[in-house]
Amino acid sequence: FAERKELKLRIRELENELIKSKQKQSDAEHHLRPKIDQMSAEVVDSNPYSRLMALKRMGIVQDYEKIRSYVVAVVGVGGVGSVTAEMLTRCGIGKLLLFDYDKVELANMNRLFFQPHQAGLSKVEAAEHTLRNINPDVAFETHNYNITTMDNFTHFLNRISHGGLEEGKPVDLVLSCVEACNELGQIWMESGVSENAVSGHIQLIIPGETACFACAPPLIVAANIDEKTLKRDGVCAASLPTTMGVVAGLLVQNVLKYLLGFGTVSYYLGYNAMQDFFPSMAMKANPQCDDRHCRRQQDEYKKKEAEQPKQEVVQEEEEVVHEDNEWGIELVSEVSEAELQDASGPVPDLPEGITVAYTIPEKGGASGETVEETDQSLEELMAQMRKM
Amino acid sequence: FAERKELKLRIRELENELIKSKQKQSDAEHHLRPKIDQMSAEVVDSNPYSRLMALKRMGIVQDYEKIRSYVVAVVGVGGVGSVTAEMLTRCGIGKLLLFDYDKVELANMNRLFFQPHQAGLSKVEAAEHTLRNINPDVAFETHNYNITTMDNFTHFLNRISHGGLEEGKPVDLVLSCVEACNELGQIWMESGVSENAVSGHIQLIIPGETACFACAPPLIVAANIDEKTLKRDGVCAASLPTTMGVVAGLLVQNVLKYLLGFGTVSYYLGYNAMQDFFPSMAMKANPQCDDRHCRRQQDEYKKKEAEQPKQEVVQEEEEVVHEDNEWGIELVSEVSEAELQDASGPVPDLPEGITVAYTIPEKGGASGETVEETDQSLEELMAQMRKM
Repeated sequence: FAERKELKLRIRELENELIKSKQKQSDAEHHLRPKIDQMSAEVVDSNPYSRLMALKRMGIVQDYEKIRSYVVAVVGVGGVGSVTAEMLTRCGIGKLLLFDYDKVELANMNRLFFQPHQAGLSKVEAAEHTLRNINPDVAFETHNYNITTMDNFTHFLNRISHGGLEEGKPVDLVLSCVEACNELGQIWMESGVSENAVSGHIQLIIPGETACFACAPPLIVAANIDEKTLKRDGVCAASLPTTMGVVAGLLVQNVLKYLLGFGTVSYYLGYNAMQDFFPSMAMKANPQCDDRHCRRQQDEYKKKEAEQPKQEVVQEEEEVVHEDNEWGIELVSEVSEAELQDASGPVPDLPEGITVAYTIPEKGGASGETVEETDQSLEELMAQMRKM
Repeated sequence: FAERKELKLRIRELENELIKSKQKQSDAEHHLRPKIDQMSAEVVDSNPYSRLMALKRMGIVQDYEKIRSYVVAVVGVGGVGSVTAEMLTRCGIGKLLLFDYDKVELANMNRLFFQPHQAGLSKVEAAEHTLRNINPDVAFETHNYNITTMDNFTHFLNRISHGGLEEGKPVDLVLSCVEACNELGQIWMESGVSENAVSGHIQLIIPGETACFACAPPLIVAANIDEKTLKRDGVCAASLPTTMGVVAGLLVQNVLKYLLGFGTVSYYLGYNAMQDFFPSMAMKANPQCDDRHCRRQQDEYKKKEAEQPKQEVVQEEEEVVHEDNEWGIELVSEVSEAELQDASGPVPDLPEGITVAYTIPEKGGASGETVEETDQSLEELMAQMRKM
């Protein structure tokens, strides 16, 4: 009897220990902080929003809480997209839609966000798990598919048009390169980092108002080598957490300025890490654009403008530097057109197909010659873009 | 007997289950990938260094593996320091020394890196845990103390001078504001973000060669309100993950350029998020500097230069824009001196004690008047700095 009693006691003990162990495990897996109904500016260590709400007191943002009403779709949760999603999550965005079909690999560990133990998981699944832990106040919707197949593309367009905070409403902003936004008239921001890891850019596209991809070459690295080709040849693009972190930071800063209405929203901002050079400009849409959706959006924009004579999309009107060029695009720029043209060449010693985005114009160089050289290089870029 | 057998079986079962549960927990807590002896450029999904080693093939970095031989000390593991440490860890730096005495709070969640479940842990402990999971090839040394107390300061100096990869050797670079570096002749980089969250900067200080803090006011936000004061008044500084991510990215990019010898290392690079303006310049040390350590380092630098007539620290020699000003500092700048002076004023509507770092010079403004206004503001800044 004594032994039986002892055995039963041991079972009770083990059962309790097991429950505790499982609880601990579950806590570690789901260490969510409680949700917060209303953003507060109270300065206490337990308030995750105090430093953001302080933007109001500092006179930077009028109504920070408004961020909760916005929905952003991030297409591609890679080196830039993942950090972009994390920044928006920490800022307390209302809802994020994430689209990607890739898996996390150890080869991604040279960029921020993903961790080695997530290798093998789908990027959207791993991202949602991390982001929900960081801020459970954000709503997430993830889609683990390739948006370029016919069925998925239809579904994707549907989610962009109806996946708002209130189902049926459109999202407020799409991030990453999606030409379909022209068709939908959807405002979007695009970003990119070069294959040599040392330059990048961000760009705001307002269909009908600013240049789309068919309007103008995206004065960026447009290397016509895709990842698959690189991998097959045992070659891969270089990448750095620094460049991707900077580009994600500039992108989300531009998103915040656009959504919350502070500062000057950049239409195009480049980053050349070799020289710490940051060219910026604005490009208006090209009336002779090849894309009929773009031309239609331009007509609609003109109509709207005529109806509302004083529409303000961007805080500050910049001086038009140059009104006429070979693409019929207006450049509104801080750097001169010659500098911008210089910016796409000459190219240093890089593997075939890799093009540096921009370099600082050489001081005292023969400018006539440089312009010649660059005109060609831009045409080549344009031809490459058209072929895509 | 049957019952006893059954009970014993149940105990065996429970014991096994408990072992499994604890194992799972331990795996989740210590999901370390195996260490990697030698960095390889092999393009396989399982290689965390393939994208970094690709910098060699792209012609950007000659000897990327060299990064393993470098040691960086990060003083302050906050919004910028933590992301800085993560970037260096993902780049595969040899060793990181982390110094901080603060605890993780939910109020830090509006910046990258820390997660809500780490609230309450010391920042260096939480950081080391995360960073070791991300890259177990990096050596870590953490110190959970305030470096400004006498005893800790002595210990800190000792670790800077002896905490290299091989014990006894100095570290290669110190990140964050440590005036003691002048005394040690230790090269360091400093960074900062403004209290209104929308500007920041990075700066490289080579004692004896470039301007130290006593040589010149660090043309930055130098709000003379400390965190404790702000908290007592129920006020806190604003911060954004975007600005801090950009500043950390620019800082670590500069570290990589400096250590691995590519591109142009920036002496001073500012970031004004409101206008996407990035002033950059170089400031030589002031021969009339108040700091005797600085003057001694200047003498030593001159001697060294005389011995080695062709010393190259920075890849590209930039044009000297202005050789003479009120502090006797040479400015080597991309922006004109007038622009730089404009850059520290006029100040928008901000709370007392908060100063914006720089604003874009107003186009067509009466420049004479602006310079007057700005001279005062810089003097005030200098006075504030001297008092610190």
